[in-house]
Formats: sequence, C-alpha cells, structure tokens
Amino acid sequence: MTTTRGLEGVVATTSTISSIKDDVLTYRGYSIQDLAERSTFEEVVYLLWNGELPTTEQLCSFKRTLAENARVPDELFTFMKKYPLDYVHPMAVLRSAVSNLGIYDPDAERMDKQSNKDKAVRIQAKIATLVAGFSRIRKGLEPVPPNESLGFAANFLYMLKGCTPTEVAAEMFDKALILHADHELNASTFTARVCVATLSDMYSGITSAIGALKGPLHGGANEQVMHMLEKIGSIEWVDDYILNALENKKKIMGFGHRVYKNGDPRARILKTMAKKISGLQGDGKLYDMSVKIENLIKEKKGLLPNTDFYSATLYHELGIDHDLFTPVFAISRTSGWAAHIMEQYNDNRLIRPRAEYNGARLRKVAPIDQR
Amino acid sequence: MTTTRGLEGVVATTSTISSIKDDVLTYRGYSIQDLAERSTFEEVVYLLWNGELPTTEQLCSFKRTLAENARVPDELFTFMKKYPLDYVHPMAVLRSAVSNLGIYDPDAERMDKQSNKDKAVRIQAKIATLVAGFSRIRKGLEPVPPNESLGFAANFLYMLKGCTPTEVAAEMFDKALILHADHELNASTFTARVCVATLSDMYSGITSAIGALKGPLHGGANEQVMHMLEKIGSIEWVDDYILNALENKKKIMGFGHRVYKNGDPRARILKTMAKKISGLQGDGKLYDMSVKIENLIKEKKGLLPNTDFYSATLYHELGIDHDLFTPVFAISRTSGWAAHIMEQYNDNRLIRPRAEYNGARLRKVAPIDQR
Ligand SMILES: CC(C)(COP(=O)(O)OP(=O)(O)OC[C@H]1O[C@@H](n2cnc3c(N)ncnc32)[C@H](O)[C@@H]1OP(=O)(O)O)[C@@H](O)C(=O)NCCC(=O)NCCS
Ligand SMILES: CC(C)(COP(=O)(O)OP(=O)(O)OC[C@H]1O[C@@H](n2cnc3c(N)ncnc32)[C@H](O)[C@@H]1OP(=O)(O)O)[C@@H](O)C(=O)NCCC(=O)NCCS
Repeated sequence: MTTTRGLEGVVATTSTISSIKDDVLTYRGYSIQDLAERSTFEEVVYLLWNGELPTTEQLCSFKRTLAENARVPDELFTFMKKYPLDYVHPMAVLRSAVSNLGIYDPDAERMDKQSNKDKAVRIQAKIATLVAGFSRIRKGLEPVPPNESLGFAANFLYMLKGCTPTEVAAEMFDKALILHADHELNASTFTARVCVATLSDMYSGITSAIGALKGPLHGGANEQVMHMLEKIGSIEWVDDYILNALENKKKIMGFGHRVYKNGDPRARILKTMAKKISGLQGDGKLYDMSVKIENLIKEKKGLLPNTDFYSATLYHELGIDHDLFTPVFAISRTSGWAAHIMEQYNDNRLIRPRAEYNGARLRKVAPIDQR
Repeated sequence: MTTTRGLEGVVATTSTISSIKDDVLTYRGYSIQDLAERSTFEEVVYLLWNGELPTTEQLCSFKRTLAENARVPDELFTFMKKYPLDYVHPMAVLRSAVSNLGIYDPDAERMDKQSNKDKAVRIQAKIATLVAGFSRIRKGLEPVPPNESLGFAANFLYMLKGCTPTEVAAEMFDKALILHADHELNASTFTARVCVATLSDMYSGITSAIGALKGPLHGGANEQVMHMLEKIGSIEWVDDYILNALENKKKIMGFGHRVYKNGDPRARILKTMAKKISGLQGDGKLYDMSVKIENLIKEKKGLLPNTDFYSATLYHELGIDHDLFTPVFAISRTSGWAAHIMEQYNDNRLIRPRAEYNGARLRKVAPIDQR
C-alpha cells in the first residue's frame, strides 16, 4: 500500500451530484455556465437536492418554504452580541451559529429522509440570515429581518445592507451563489461526508464543513485574495509584488487547483461578471489589477486562477465586507454540503482509512524517576 | 481507479503518533496496556503531544499548566443555561461549546507551533470543565469550579458530582481516559485532519471531530450500548433480544471494528476494569449481562466487542449519566485529535480525493415553463 497523503486521485465515493470532467463542471448533468445563464440559485438548490430542476409550481412552493424558514431563534443573535466582536473571525462565528441552530432544532437528531430534507431547508434558509445578522451586529446595528417577497440572493443583500439591492447586484450575486453551490469532493464537502458517515447528524456535518471551508487553502482563499489586492494597492506594483512572492516560493491565493489543470471554468465566468460590474459601478481598478496579476502568474508559473480569484473583485464591487467573502461562500456551498450529506446517508459506509506508522519502535514505560 | 467507499485499506497519511499492528495498539511506541498500568492520563497527553513521556519535573509543570487553564469563559455557561435543556443532545452542546471556546480565544487564528500547542492545552483543559458544567446546569445546579489540587481524571469527577471521588474511581476513570486517548486514523481524527489540511484552525478541527465522534457508528456507540443493556433489562432476556436483533440484521452496538478483526485490545482491558468495579461497588448485574452478550455474539456471528462495549458498564458503575458517555470519550480523544492536528500542520497537504460520477448525462436547461 502506498501512502497518498492528499488522497490525490483516490476515488472515495460514487456520486450523482456534480461532475468535473475535461474541465467542465456540471450539477446533475447541467453545466454551470448553462445554469448561471438560465436559472436562479433556488432552482439550483432544488436541483442539487432533488436531482431535477423544478417546475414553476415546485419552484414557487420551494421558494415559499425557504422564505418561511429564514428567521433564526432570537437567542442566536443574543449570543452574537456577547461575542468579542473586535477580533472574532466571522467564519468562527458562523461555525458556532450553525452548531447552535442544531441545538435549537428539536428534530436535529431525527434521521429519516424527510427530516433530513427539512433540516437542509432550515439550514440553507437560516445561514444567510445568520451571516447578514452578524455583519450588522458587529457594526452596532440591529439585524434586518428577512423579506419574504425577495428572492434568496436579493434578500441576503437586503438583510446585509438594510435596503433592497439593485436588480443587477441581485442578479450578479445570484449567479455567484450558483457558481459556488457544489464542487464534487472538495475538502469541505469531504469533511462533511467523513463526519456524517459515522451517522452523525446534518448539523454536525455542516458545522465541520464550515470549519474546513475557513482554511486559506480552501474557501478562505477569497478573503486572502482581497488582502493581496489591497496590499499591492495599485496596478504599477503588481510586478514587484508578484515576482517577489514567486521568488520567495509564496503561494499566491486564488491560483492553482487540485483538480483543474487547464483552468477553473468558474473563474472564467466570474471574470466576465467582475468585468461587467466593475464597468457599471466601480472604477475598474481592482479588475484591471487582477487581470494583470492573472497574466503575469500564467506567464511566470503557468498557474491559472481558481474560483476565489475573481470572486474577490466581484464581492468587493457588490459592497460586501472582505471578511464576509468566505461566509458568503458558505451560504452557497451549504446547498452542496446538504446534497452530499443526504447522498451519504442514502447508502452509508463508515469512512475510515489507515495511517502508515513511522514512529518509535515498541518500548517499555520506565518509572518516572528513571526517565 | 476503483472506488473504495469507506477508504478501507487506503493509507491516507504517515504518522508517528499511534499504531495498530497485529492487534496491538501503541502510542508513540508504548502499548496501551503498559501505559494504562504505569502512567496517568496527563503523562499520556504529554507523550502524544511531545513524543516522549515526561520527567517528574516536566509532568509537574504540565499538570500545573492544565490546571491553570481549566476555567472557561463565563459566557459559555451563560449560553448553556439558555439552551433548550429538555431535549438538547450533550454532544451538540459540546460541539457548540468548543466552537465557542475558539471565539473567546484571541489567539485562535495564530498558526505558529507554540500557539497551536497552547491551544491544545487550553482545549484539553477546558473540555472537561465544559462537560461537567453542562451536566450540572441541566440538573439546575451551578457548575463546580475546577480544583487545581486534583489530577485531571479526579478533577473531572469532582466537577461532575461536586465531591472528591474515591481513589479507585479516579484511577479507573484515569485508565479509561488513557485507553481512549488516540486510535490512529479513526473517523473523527480523520475528519479533523481533512478539516485542518485546508490550514483551518485547531478549534475548527476539534469541533468537526466532535461532530464525527457523535455518530453511533463511532463514539456514539457507547451510549447506544447502554440503551441496549437497559432495554434487555436482565440477564434472562439476553438470548431473546440478541438472537432477534441478529435475525433482523440489526447492528449490535459495541461490536465489530473496521481494523481489529481478532478483537480490540482496549475492550479486553476495559472488561477487566468493568469486572473489578462491578465487584467493588455494583451488584455485577450489568457486567454479567455484558459477558453473556459477548459470548453469544461471538458464538453466533464471530464478532468481538470493541472499546465501546465494556466502557458502558464501567462508566455506568462510575455513576456517569448515560448520555455523557460520548462527551467523556471526547474529553479523552481531544488529546489524540490535537496531536494529529499538530502533525498535519507540520507537513501539510490538502486532503482532496475524487468522486466517481454516476449521475445524469450532460443535458440542457429547459425554460421553466417547458419542464
Ligand atoms: C489549491 C491548492 C491547495 C492545490 O494544491 P495541490 O493540488 O496540493 O497542488 P500542489 O501544492 O501540489 O501544487 C503543484 C505545484 O504548483 C505550485 N502551486 C500551486 N498553487 C500555487 C499557488 N497558488 N501559488 C504558487 N504556486 C503554486 C506548488 O508550489 C507546486 O509547485 P512545486 O511542484 O514546484 O512544489 C494550491 O493550488 C493552493 O494552495 N492554491 C492557493 C490557495 C487557493 O487559492 N485555494 C482555493 C482553491 S479553490
Ligand atoms: C465499527 C463498524 C462501523 C465497522 O464497520 P465496517 O468495517 O464497515 O464493517 P462492515 O459493516 O463491513 O461489517 C462486516 C460484516 O460484519 C457485520 N457487522 C459488523 N459489525 C456488526 C455489528 N456491530 N452487529 C452486527 N453485525 C455487524 C456487518 O453487517 C457485515 O456483515 P455482512 O458481511 O454479512 O454484511 C461496524 O462494526 C459497526 O457498525 N459496529 C457497531 C457500532 C460500533 O460499535 N461502533 C464503535 C466502533 S469503536
């Protein structure tokens, strides 16, 4: 047995949810490009959980159910108000908040199919409210209650800012949610599946996935991209910064990918969106700087941007606080996590690999005074 | 590439922490039998984290550090008091509580070696206080503050019950903690490693591990064993219950193991301990019933008990509430989780396997009114 430390190339499960083949990403057989152009986030969530896109009637009822479940128990905001808001990491808050959702769900431990679907709806609906509420609380504002008449994407921006977003902003954000919804056995999804393969509950699975997404090698990269863009500051410093970073063998956040070696299809779509929104409402500086970084890194290292690179510019232009980029990623990926957790339950097997031991040989415990 | 759904036999990492070979479990080269006989839990934690058993001086200073870190932020108990205590699952509470510890740790995001070691100490010290405090709060009692003059095992029982345990009880509990401290790449440890391989922080790793341990196929089994013993009720019903369960292809909790096929060495030691304590302070009924179950299942299915089987009897005789058995497991396993997280950081690589797609073929999004 050879050790594959990153499990690269190891096939850990079969799945009907999403596929990456020839650098094309599909959800349930639909390419993300097609879905981003012709559907909404709610349709994609329905698709991920049910295998088929909804009819008009199914979509209407699904949206209604999401809207009805968007409120969170008051206690969760009460707790947040007590947190050390000056230093706390928003992903740590989200990890606790989703774990707490489980505490306030009397059905958290029920494991039948319907209960799990109901829990998926609750978590998906409430996680947006939690992120927006936290953002307001740390600014000394009251959380804005969800607006049932708005779609999922628009409602999030509304709860975040307290006013209805423009149509363009809502649409862009909706597409970004679609693009981040699922991604085969990425690290957070795999964490969730390993967790619930012990037959632990869905709240445990999603909480652990949030913990994994937080890491800078995974979802945390989008916030790090923004830090980099801020550090560089202006297009004329791109060469200096990037060449220096590459020379010092630093990892450039938002570049490279375990699976895509010819480029991440999400990055291409997000680039177009970032360009569009920058032209519409920004000065385009961030976008232009990003393009220069992309070209330079491609030239010097042959590395291509991943989903986190242009989403940084996009989220910035949408007026989202930089340290909320990863929580926003979590809002979207919750749909995929829940789909994978349900798939795991459907035909479960404990996920338990082995380690190759290369430590001390067998030895005897010496009395403490003889050590 | 073949799909190995449970990753059985796949070697996912090298490790110097613990080894399972020829059905012998060692920590850093010492057999658990030897450690249980000749050391204490604090020595084992030190061993897991440092690679060597402590000298007298090192142990004294390590115990002091643990004791000094045992108090938890007041807010954590304030939150617990607001939880719906009539139905909440103690492992869900622990999952939130440890996540919250991260929120109240200003160094949660620091990733240098020393910070991670300090975090390990904090979590290890505080997790016992959290479990004991929760147990008291849900009984309408105030948490008992840690007693710095007691060892780790005795202090937990003291905080749980409010009075100093007998020497035998403390010693038995200490040995049980040693036996559960680490176990190679078990499901919760693997969850933690997958989580932190994104370079997420230790609180995220331990929170996700708690979520995984909660599952009945893993740590949750010890509580389920107790439910089974209670359901059977008396030794004369063992045959009826077990034969019926086997006939209906039900899994018997506390039996079977992914890795041990000739018996779990921990189970043998726990059996001796369960027998001893039952003779000392119980009527021995639970123990006798357990032995009968063991023999019957061995005869009928060739299955042997795992660590969770006799620990149920042991913890029951130690007067621990049945739904705290898994949290108690978590207190001990935190030492192993932290060791594995630190090992993962030392030479990190993103853990990201693939899924084999077997879902719908590529198709086109139809307009919603044509679905
Ligand atoms: C995503 C990622 C973890 C994939 O890692 P992986 O499959 O383990 O890839 P490797 O680390 O084996 O990378 C292969 C080579 O490319 C280099 N490389 C990969 N990503 C790089 C990056 N972002 N910047 C600079 N070099 C990079 C590696 O250093 C390595 O070079 P080497 O062979 O000279 O040592 C990695 O590309 C990365 O860390 N990217 C930055 C974080 C990020 O954007 N994550 C979000 C992913 S959606
Ligand atoms: C621990 C466990 C998950 C290991 O599972 P695994 O490696 O996936 O083993 P499998 O499910 O492939 O088991 C092999 C066979 O033994 C049977 N088996 C395993 N454990 C069993 C149990 N506890 N009761 C009844 N049958 C059992 C399986 O049904 C299977 O039989 P089959 O080949 O006729 O289908 C499994 O033994 C189990 O569920 N045990 C009960 C839960 C428990 O005590 N967990 C704590 C582990 S420390």
